[in-house]
Amino acid sequence: MTLPLGYRYAATYAGIRKTAQDDLALIVSDTPASAAAVFTQNRIQASPVTLSRKHLKSSGRIVSGVLVNAGNANCATRTGDRVAAACCRAAAKLLRTKVDRVLPASTGVIGVELDAGLIVNALPALAARLSADKFDDAAKAIMTTDTVPKTARAEVALEDGVVRIAGMTKGAGMIQPLMATTLGFVVTDARIGVAALRRMLVCAAESSYNRLSVDGDTSTNDMLLLLANGASGIAVRPADRELFTEALTRLCQSLAMQIARDGEGAKKLITIHVTGARDEAGATKIARGIANSPLVKTAIAGSDANWGRILSAAGNSGVAFDPSKVDIFLQRTLVCRRGLAAGFAEDELKAKLDARECSIHFVIRGKGTGQARFWTCDFTKDYIDINASYRT
Amino acid sequence: MTLPLGYRYAATYAGIRKTAQDDLALIVSDTPASAAAVFTQNRIQASPVTLSRKHLKSSGRIVSGVLVNAGNANCATRTGDRVAAACCRAAAKLLRTKVDRVLPASTGVIGVELDAGLIVNALPALAARLSADKFDDAAKAIMTTDTVPKTARAEVALEDGVVRIAGMTKGAGMIQPLMATTLGFVVTDARIGVAALRRMLVCAAESSYNRLSVDGDTSTNDMLLLLANGASGIAVRPADRELFTEALTRLCQSLAMQIARDGEGAKKLITIHVTGARDEAGATKIARGIANSPLVKTAIAGSDANWGRILSAAGNSGVAFDPSKVDIFLQRTLVCRRGLAAGFAEDELKAKLDARECSIHFVIRGKGTGQARFWTCDFTKDYIDINASYRT
Repeated sequence: MTLPLGYRYAATYAGIRKTAQDDLALIVSDTPASAAAVFTQNRIQASPVTLSRKHLKSSGRIVSGVLVNAGNANCATRTGDRVAAACCRAAAKLLRTKVDRVLPASTGVIGVELDAGLIVNALPALAARLSADKFDDAAKAIMTTDTVPKTARAEVALEDGVVRIAGMTKGAGMIQPLMATTLGFVVTDARIGVAALRRMLVCAAESSYNRLSVDGDTSTNDMLLLLANGASGIAVRPADRELFTEALTRLCQSLAMQIARDGEGAKKLITIHVTGARDEAGATKIARGIANSPLVKTAIAGSDANWGRILSAAGNSGVAFDPSKVDIFLQRTLVCRRGLAAGFAEDELKAKLDARECSIHFVIRGKGTGQARFWTCDFTKDYIDINASYRT
Repeated sequence: MTLPLGYRYAATYAGIRKTAQDDLALIVSDTPASAAAVFTQNRIQASPVTLSRKHLKSSGRIVSGVLVNAGNANCATRTGDRVAAACCRAAAKLLRTKVDRVLPASTGVIGVELDAGLIVNALPALAARLSADKFDDAAKAIMTTDTVPKTARAEVALEDGVVRIAGMTKGAGMIQPLMATTLGFVVTDARIGVAALRRMLVCAAESSYNRLSVDGDTSTNDMLLLLANGASGIAVRPADRELFTEALTRLCQSLAMQIARDGEGAKKLITIHVTGARDEAGATKIARGIANSPLVKTAIAGSDANWGRILSAAGNSGVAFDPSKVDIFLQRTLVCRRGLAAGFAEDELKAKLDARECSIHFVIRGKGTGQARFWTCDFTKDYIDINASYRT
């Protein structure tokens, strides 16, 4: 599948990380692109988040470039706002665009001053290296505790022709996006106005990034950005919007699932499906409660069909339901019927739970139509290893 | 310190646990005692919880005996209600009291049928063994993944003389009490009416059990029970109530801290103190957010002064505050000043964080008077070990 037209990418090692692995990425649209973004709901917001909001507002949501660094969140730092601004100014000069058409993004440790000099000095070589085929390099450069880069591509056949979408994202810990998460950059060569673009992104984020939790912690730097530069010459017409939004949602779900699969220390991707709740919000709340229970996640790590913990976690979610109407399936095996133990072959199910992908289906019998799909991962000792000494 | 007068205790192995370790305890008041209890807020409630509520109501909150088993939660089981009722009937017969003056309590695995026969058959020998000095035996019998029994005693000098309070509790995982937690049994020989007793218990639970989290999971079986049999001959007069409630609160706090200290896999007790919030509810919410962040808890496990995670966790708590007014102290060392890194000696603090007790003080500067103390523990690989194969 080809990448969207009219974008170039570059990555380099600017010296922000301790290890010599690319830590600075640049994403450039050859022509100014319509942009939509959703940001973290954490009360503490990093400088690149507040500056990106400001730039989007003053530019009328037009973006030419995105400058992303890993290794430092540029959050809760004395010089944070100045550093973010200085980096955008330097990038804008090189890209010959207005400063508010450049968005900054950062990820890494919180509370450590970020040296703007490292980024400003690395920028000329980075810009010189921009190329349409460096998409994967950029995806690698934004990684932190990720073990693999995370990308997804799609093509959508609209009335007037085919447009392309491509996305990259990062994140393995401090993951419970609410409105957005982690860092995610999605580009398309379709032509879409900023208002429609925003509606599409909010809709796609709601059933992808907002249905994801690795550890229940929402980062200070989360940002999901969608750029549409129209380089394909093909517009998304009103009649095309549903089709495009669907493709965008599937692409964002793929990115979100890649994050869960690569959750810190995780060996298994867990997909939670709740059906029969009163409404979608209730289903999501139950699913989130199950996804954030360390007891459920450690049981899955141990391939232990401990459905009582799933029922208990749902009972703590704050959503009203009748326990005697609940069926629970693990790997499609009925383990709880009407709130009580269902007979199942313990050894057989244990073997099934050893798979890299586990499913939990939580069914409330009755007339409720609220349903939600949610992604998380199992909880292993490696999570502790990774996080007990992340900073030092 | 002597135990409250007029109570007897017994423990035995009834065969409910897999290992031959006492799993059945009986607490008896020689004369019917006033009782107050708070229960889990989980939507899923175990049979002993619903039956205890019923008995308290029908008996006018008068209790003669409490029958507790470990090894099986008697929750989400087909026969749960019948089993709990049968055990109470058998105990009431032996104790020559009305069935609704016996309260059942269970803790252990969810969703496995509990064999009433095991308990009914063990009861005669258990009752025969009742003795005023078996308090610690009972405290041991109610343990599950606890590594140590948890008890506390107090004496209060009232206007008319000295009364005694003693409590036992259990729990190491699935601990985030809301209203009550785990199992806790507190007895006093003071004379207190049921209405006053209830107010005292709710007040004590609020700043002890309800300020405790090991893993953010609230159990289906939580119950904190307070019995007052008046065997001292001394009444708690209205003028004494504050003094008595204070002693009761301190005793409950001691029990809660023992639970946090013995949290599954925990090496460290963490005390979180939030000051300067708008109100106590806000302070508690921030403290709970910090206490439930796996990233904060793993950092403490690694003696890593990662204050950015504390700030971020507070930012996710849903409470509004100005980050630039936040100071954070770790082990009384200032690590974050007005939301930014404060200079501190990294190695020195790391050594301090190796202690078995760690303190986090989260200060919001300004006029806010809301404060809360909250207890949790660090998060280590042993938690995963314990919970990956709890059931099988």
